[in-house]
Amino acid sequence: MPRTPQAANGARPSPGRELAHPDRDDITLTAVLHALADPMRLRVVRELAEDGGELSCTDIELPVTKSTCTHHYRVLRESGVLRQVYRGTAKMNRLRREDLDARFPGLLDTVLTAARGTPGS
Amino acid sequence: MPRTPQAANGARPSPGRELAHPDRDDITLTAVLHALADPMRLRVVRELAEDGGELSCTDIELPVTKSTCTHHYRVLRESGVLRQVYRGTAKMNRLRREDLDARFPGLLDTVLTAARGTPGS
Repeated sequence: MPRTPQAANGARPSPGRELAHPDRDDITLTAVLHALADPMRLRVVRELAEDGGELSCTDIELPVTKSTCTHHYRVLRESGVLRQVYRGTAKMNRLRREDLDARFPGLLDTVLTAARGTPGS
Repeated sequence: MPRTPQAANGARPSPGRELAHPDRDDITLTAVLHALADPMRLRVVRELAEDGGELSCTDIELPVTKSTCTHHYRVLRESGVLRQVYRGTAKMNRLRREDLDARFPGLLDTVLTAARGTPGS
């Protein structure tokens, strides 16, 4: 695919900067469980679930280095847990709730409830 | 702890051969999710759930080497997903369903249902 220059207003993501995401049917249970099996990634998912909208990587403070942070978001994106899009220079994140609920009914809510009940675990 | 000789009938586990398990309250969500985030370990959990009782490591055929197999069972035991006890020379495994259901209500069943719905994932 040819790389398209970024729109001047930065609002429309350029195809050349689109990030890879699995289609809904390609999301696997083990990849999702692995993505959720980390306290930092679980914190990101909880904050996105509470917000319900889009948050940038810097909106969610994680006590880790920038590169570790980038890694965690990549794991979450590649597993299908969240969708990342560029909005200008910011990478925005949104939980793929509909896709996850359709693929694995009840899983996300069960994990979120469990995480609320056992903080830090 | 001194090692106690194994009982002659092999039925009673010797204290010296007892394996380490987390107490119910020490089971963490991320450790359980990590333990379940592997197709081989998920297969073990599904078979133990279907059986409802104790199965030996050799009762559940996994297409992996013996040492990999031992590793998978250790991850499942140390995370609190299953209990392993020696019965004579055999290591028997039982799902810690009550502990998991008490600690993270609905989690195990949701994952088992998701695993049934998406074979191989």
